[in-house]
Amino acid sequence: MGWADIASYGHPSQEWGPIDDMAIQGMRFTNFYAPSSICTPSRAGLLTGRMAQRSGAYGPGRVFWPTSTNGLPREEVTIAEALKDEGYATGFVGKWHLGVNAHSHNDGEHLPYNHGFDYVGTNLPLSNGWFCDEEKWHMSNPETLICMLYKNATIYQQPYSHYHMSEAFVDDAIDFMRDCQQQRKPFFLYYGIAQPHVDVYSNDEFRGSSKRGRYGDMIREMSWSVGAIMDEVKRLGEDFNTISIFTADNGPHLQLCNEGGDAGVLKGGKMQFWDGGIRVPGIFRWTGHIPPAKISDEVVSQLDIFPTLMSIVGGSVPDDRKMDGQDISSTLFNWWPEPQPEPVAVKQLYKQHEVTNSEPRMLVFYCEAQLFAVRYGSYKFHFTTQRAWTKEGHHAEPGRCGDGGFPLGNNVECASCGNLMPECFTYYETPLMYNIYKDPNEAYPLNGSLPEHKAVLDEMMRRLEAFKADMVIAPPLLASRSTATIPCCTPETFPVCTCNYVYEGPVPPPGSASQTEYTSEEFLEMISSHDYDYSMWYD
Amino acid sequence: MGWADIASYGHPSQEWGPIDDMAIQGMRFTNFYAPSSICTPSRAGLLTGRMAQRSGAYGPGRVFWPTSTNGLPREEVTIAEALKDEGYATGFVGKWHLGVNAHSHNDGEHLPYNHGFDYVGTNLPLSNGWFCDEEKWHMSNPETLICMLYKNATIYQQPYSHYHMSEAFVDDAIDFMRDCQQQRKPFFLYYGIAQPHVDVYSNDEFRGSSKRGRYGDMIREMSWSVGAIMDEVKRLGEDFNTISIFTADNGPHLQLCNEGGDAGVLKGGKMQFWDGGIRVPGIFRWTGHIPPAKISDEVVSQLDIFPTLMSIVGGSVPDDRKMDGQDISSTLFNWWPEPQPEPVAVKQLYKQHEVTNSEPRMLVFYCEAQLFAVRYGSYKFHFTTQRAWTKEGHHAEPGRCGDGGFPLGNNVECASCGNLMPECFTYYETPLMYNIYKDPNEAYPLNGSLPEHKAVLDEMMRRLEAFKADMVIAPPLLASRSTATIPCCTPETFPVCTCNYVYEGPVPPPGSASQTEYTSEEFLEMISSHDYDYSMWYD
Repeated sequence: MGWADIASYGHPSQEWGPIDDMAIQGMRFTNFYAPSSICTPSRAGLLTGRMAQRSGAYGPGRVFWPTSTNGLPREEVTIAEALKDEGYATGFVGKWHLGVNAHSHNDGEHLPYNHGFDYVGTNLPLSNGWFCDEEKWHMSNPETLICMLYKNATIYQQPYSHYHMSEAFVDDAIDFMRDCQQQRKPFFLYYGIAQPHVDVYSNDEFRGSSKRGRYGDMIREMSWSVGAIMDEVKRLGEDFNTISIFTADNGPHLQLCNEGGDAGVLKGGKMQFWDGGIRVPGIFRWTGHIPPAKISDEVVSQLDIFPTLMSIVGGSVPDDRKMDGQDISSTLFNWWPEPQPEPVAVKQLYKQHEVTNSEPRMLVFYCEAQLFAVRYGSYKFHFTTQRAWTKEGHHAEPGRCGDGGFPLGNNVECASCGNLMPECFTYYETPLMYNIYKDPNEAYPLNGSLPEHKAVLDEMMRRLEAFKADMVIAPPLLASRSTATIPCCTPETFPVCTCNYVYEGPVPPPGSASQTEYTSEEFLEMISSHDYDYSMWYD
Repeated sequence: MGWADIASYGHPSQEWGPIDDMAIQGMRFTNFYAPSSICTPSRAGLLTGRMAQRSGAYGPGRVFWPTSTNGLPREEVTIAEALKDEGYATGFVGKWHLGVNAHSHNDGEHLPYNHGFDYVGTNLPLSNGWFCDEEKWHMSNPETLICMLYKNATIYQQPYSHYHMSEAFVDDAIDFMRDCQQQRKPFFLYYGIAQPHVDVYSNDEFRGSSKRGRYGDMIREMSWSVGAIMDEVKRLGEDFNTISIFTADNGPHLQLCNEGGDAGVLKGGKMQFWDGGIRVPGIFRWTGHIPPAKISDEVVSQLDIFPTLMSIVGGSVPDDRKMDGQDISSTLFNWWPEPQPEPVAVKQLYKQHEVTNSEPRMLVFYCEAQLFAVRYGSYKFHFTTQRAWTKEGHHAEPGRCGDGGFPLGNNVECASCGNLMPECFTYYETPLMYNIYKDPNEAYPLNGSLPEHKAVLDEMMRRLEAFKADMVIAPPLLASRSTATIPCCTPETFPVCTCNYVYEGPVPPPGSASQTEYTSEEFLEMISSHDYDYSMWYD
């Protein structure tokens, strides 16, 4: 979702919702960064506190696919594993996207139960893509091979329906929290929200409810689901004991015209390293601990969530590997103003908000294995830029956007890391430099040869060299693929294998992935209604 | 200022301030329109509830200049005059820009005291322009002939200093309110805030205090001044009796690079009729009457302020002329949800926010005497568009923007109403059509030939024809100019006349405009330090 996709972050049409309530009940960060500009590496970073380039959860194709043989490596320590060590029950529902199978179509090697989650409810092991559209807005039929809904490690619906998917996530999340409450166990819930994504959907309850249209309906359903979980936390009496964090894994998919979200004043979007691609909402709520209606413009990252949570519970982060996140507890909790002996003059009152950090925060952004951008204190540096989608002009190009901004294709212009589309890239000998606070749109570069800017540039370059010296880039795990790992598919008949398994039993135990196999005649009949080219996604 | 220039409207760097406090203590409108995209006609609309095309406060040059012989016509009834009839004391401080003199350099024919304001404190009869920059950022010296500060009808400083100007406005406003309180008179205060404008300034207290730079410092000073007045209202015990409204007269001056403000997701800016030029912050605060932290996306206008205030005080608007504003009391006050006999289902809860107005609100926008755009319910229609400034590209054009977005000139590209720069304009036989709620950026036009859109277009055109039938466009008052009316200037010596009058006495009574006259030798000495072309502004 985009930085500006919700009312509390300034969208002019999106209706206020429970996520916005979280924002005014807690602290809203304006300079909060995802670790990457696309799903898989961002979520790997969130869960491990380490950049995906260290764990390997990056590479060609940018995310895990049904054919991927890898996932988030088991050696990585997730927040869930660390909190388990501190006595927490751990639960997961929603979108995972950190791997499925390793060797066969049902080994579930990379699923959440193998990464520290005791309870795994309804979940999407991959995503909700353009090809899963049962509404037939864009496809005549949803694609069975990519659109799977699991319960724990078992396929539950294939192809899935978006209908009541949010309710299933929420119901399972609530069941988990209630169980924890009954067992008097503290809990950690990771709800990987499926919205918003290229497949825009919403249930009857929200359809047509937003002035903003289909995308707005989807945001409202998402916000409802967050609110339903927050309401249960309050009903359980755990409001004062629960820190809740809302964020997004990357910016808006602008190439989807009016159904891809909005980054507001920020430039660029998903799959890019302009701030629009990596700067996201970041809301922290904890009644009685984090101040209400507080806004922070400190530079922070999703990588900080792991060390911050460990600091709160009194645990520790792994000490045998490099962590990229920092504990931001002081920003969250040490906000109460110092008592003043006498009334403060206006001048002091305003000046006290100045940047006082002794060392500027540095966040480094790689596109796959290439260093693209650095946020350094007030500044942003680009070594390579991708051409940004601008609404002016692009909408008029044939085949892109229809009436009112309806997307005519799953466009991903200038979204790669190089090579494929050389016209999209600009490389800089001396990095392009912006003051992000003064120029959040990254429109007006600073003249790096002016002494005051040169000094900052040199300082950043020194810090960056030190960072690089400590950076070991793992091989890209996304490079390895095999048809053998496609869930619920017999490799022999690929690509015409399919299955339509509808699960009706109780939540299965981990490791019991199941499938329904069809005869060749059944496969052929099912596939005959497909009207698209497999190579579009199997690439 | 831009729609997105303050934190509560989503700016990512601008520090939270008292104006934002007003927003969470009251109702924040997201679809709030100024009557025009530039100062004079907008302010004329605000004060009269009538479009400037009816009163004549529009025309070539777009605003009143020192040489203008006209002002807001005396026959127009202002909010101040109407509230006086209801027993209110009326006060004005700040920027006026609705005319100065009519025949001579000191008749003060069009000044605030002639428009219903009992008390007129420190004020700028014109504006704070590019030429008034005593900081020497852009000019070697401020321009005497345009940069005048008045107390009531008397020149107080010429050229003025921005230093402590905000404090002077605030001090006078507070004096006025205290006097009213002592006399037990209800009061109406109109504070015409001078910031932000092309001449970016701030006092020592705010200089360097904003991460956003000079523009941010200026916004903070503005916000402080609003807070200082609000604080006094509370100190006087009148918080529950006082409705406070904050708004802006037009969008950001984008051509000033990084010092012109930001409209966020909206397109275009000041002097244009894309929403960025006319959609502005609109905040209504009234403790105990208007709900706190409420956001409304209803289509409303500054023209509505007059009838709404009259409705609140139980008075009436003039009935001998066409009013364009509507009473929006029901939006401000009738917001409490209906009591529900039983818990409301999610579906109803979300659906109840749907648009239910029987008749869509129509706002018509003229550029001088030409109809440019119409907002109609969810939709916006353009008959003529001006090319919008895009940050992408323009900053690199020679002579436009320097290091980090420092403006190199007082650019006004594509800001006129036609003729002068034909390459800036596009004319539409069938108006260009957007759904503003779905597409606030006006990026993706609707296909007007589709039946569902055609129906809306036809309906709007019918309403527009009815509107036009009732619209009498007055001659443009801005067309008439004479050097005889330049304040504090003997016409014989124009353009080298000047004066440097520093007022040190008490606030003078109305109608006593004074001046210091210089010998020709003194004029010539003063003018010799000027390094610019008069025609730049005297045109």
